[in-house]
Amino acid sequence: MPTIPAPEADGEFGLIRRHFTRPGHTLPPQAVLGVGDDCALLQPTPGHQLAISCDMLVEGRHFLPDADPATLGHKTLAVNLSDLAAMGARPLGFTLALALPAVDDTWLAGFARGLFALADRHACPLIGGDTTRGPLTLCVTVFGELAPGSALRRDAARAGHDVWLSGRTGEARLALALRAGDDWALAAGLDPAQAGACHRRMDAPEPRLVLGQALAGVAHAGIDVSDGLAGDLGHILTASGVGAELQIDALPVAPALERLTATRRLECLVHGGDDYELLFCAPPEQRARIEAIATQAGTPVTRIGRITAEPGLRWLDAQGAVQTLPGRGFDHFA
Amino acid sequence: MPTIPAPEADGEFGLIRRHFTRPGHTLPPQAVLGVGDDCALLQPTPGHQLAISCDMLVEGRHFLPDADPATLGHKTLAVNLSDLAAMGARPLGFTLALALPAVDDTWLAGFARGLFALADRHACPLIGGDTTRGPLTLCVTVFGELAPGSALRRDAARAGHDVWLSGRTGEARLALALRAGDDWALAAGLDPAQAGACHRRMDAPEPRLVLGQALAGVAHAGIDVSDGLAGDLGHILTASGVGAELQIDALPVAPALERLTATRRLECLVHGGDDYELLFCAPPEQRARIEAIATQAGTPVTRIGRITAEPGLRWLDAQGAVQTLPGRGFDHFA
Repeated sequence: MPTIPAPEADGEFGLIRRHFTRPGHTLPPQAVLGVGDDCALLQPTPGHQLAISCDMLVEGRHFLPDADPATLGHKTLAVNLSDLAAMGARPLGFTLALALPAVDDTWLAGFARGLFALADRHACPLIGGDTTRGPLTLCVTVFGELAPGSALRRDAARAGHDVWLSGRTGEARLALALRAGDDWALAAGLDPAQAGACHRRMDAPEPRLVLGQALAGVAHAGIDVSDGLAGDLGHILTASGVGAELQIDALPVAPALERLTATRRLECLVHGGDDYELLFCAPPEQRARIEAIATQAGTPVTRIGRITAEPGLRWLDAQGAVQTLPGRGFDHFA
Repeated sequence: MPTIPAPEADGEFGLIRRHFTRPGHTLPPQAVLGVGDDCALLQPTPGHQLAISCDMLVEGRHFLPDADPATLGHKTLAVNLSDLAAMGARPLGFTLALALPAVDDTWLAGFARGLFALADRHACPLIGGDTTRGPLTLCVTVFGELAPGSALRRDAARAGHDVWLSGRTGEARLALALRAGDDWALAAGLDPAQAGACHRRMDAPEPRLVLGQALAGVAHAGIDVSDGLAGDLGHILTASGVGAELQIDALPVAPALERLTATRRLECLVHGGDDYELLFCAPPEQRARIEAIATQAGTPVTRIGRITAEPGLRWLDAQGAVQTLPGRGFDHFA
């Protein structure tokens, strides 16, 4: 859509093509045609459905101007792959649209390195995209496939289902607070190893693709925890027209979070965000199978509660009494 | 990826959901699951390939800040559908990622109206997307399907093929010059009907989807003319490793362009851009079939030259003599 004449020579964007086309790199078989035509062509497995997700990241809002480009490349794709994982889909490929204020070769090389390292690990090729000049903005659309009826949909939770969580939440939230210099985070006095673990969780989340695909057709509802455990479970409860009871003491706690006050720890666990773990619901008769799937995938899972017919989310303490947790954003009133 | 706490309440973006979700609107059957889960789900026709294209539009670069929102909504989708048309694909759906500096209800309502009017005409539902705060940026990724082997690929032109053009080029370029107040455009003294036709070509291009789908498996190479006839044909020639001879006098000329000087007319025809016509190559034995397809589609097509084994693009006058045309951007030296 070249309506307004470009201020720069088109040739500059040859630099971008150099960073995002990979001569000699073999595309996986599902990618019939990659970057360089009007459209990319994908060949899904016959009879399968296509799962599609899309995220736009803007500098200053989703990442800081001084973000390491390789880390940003990883995370840009990881948050999209996490959506495929939450659906139980196998990655097929992705497109990348990129607005750049200027062509910075070093930045682009780093970004592409982080992006392709993750893409290659999941056989998820870059198949197309667009580059333009503008405020730094990244838009990834990712494509996966799954067998019809096997998707982990938000509207599939039923009363009596167990609620499961992969991995553990809260470390990314603590990393954010450490970077912001928040007193409550600094007061925890984390050793370098603990702090490093938190920063890695924030910078380099690992999409739970192996677990998600194995759960497709076994678990029912699923979502990835990107905005906080409570909020994301809320999406499932609303879509499914159900409620849930969660056991506060069942939430897995990372060593770094042990050093926080109880209130801050709960804030991180429940409202943290940026976790990219899977939250899913399954009938109790699937417990043994889910444990086996998790062992096979190398990703721990924890049963943290159950779905109820009664709407709303209730938190139970060790005695089974309902506790009121502070809502999201209670920081402002601390 | 909510890494940096949002300056505004999330609730504001309820406005956006209001504009882009359509309660009561029935999705076409290929859309198994639309907006509102981790992923959208599409069910392509069994055995078909998926065609995917992606464009990012930035305010001030691809459109002016005062662009009519409904027109912008139409064009944002139209330029992507044009890529599907150029491949010969049938639309299945699209995602929209949107960065907005502020939530402007009137603007969003207009944008959504223009977007959905075109989407509905082509049974191409919005199936997912993302909204965030940021400099006004629009990113559409569109999905279509086609039978394996039928795609109009850029690398499929062969010596001896005819070169065909749908519709006619140059009117959008003239509209741009009229808006910029360029002397040469104003000097043409267009009547309001002629000028209006040019502006409509620029603002509301019609993707040649019916024609493109009918040509799949009949024509070989294809591309949509978005950056100018010569430049876009160049992409086919490079990808196919061939050359072409085009007949200058064969290019169809809109009435408005008749009023330009010969040089300016040629500039508009050959380097105009924003035309969204189809340029395609086919064996001569397909001529009658292509004429019939064009009649059926209601889109005129013109044979404008032929593919040669000798590389390069040569322009021939009525006597068959090679003419040197000014290159793109010769404006700067006018």
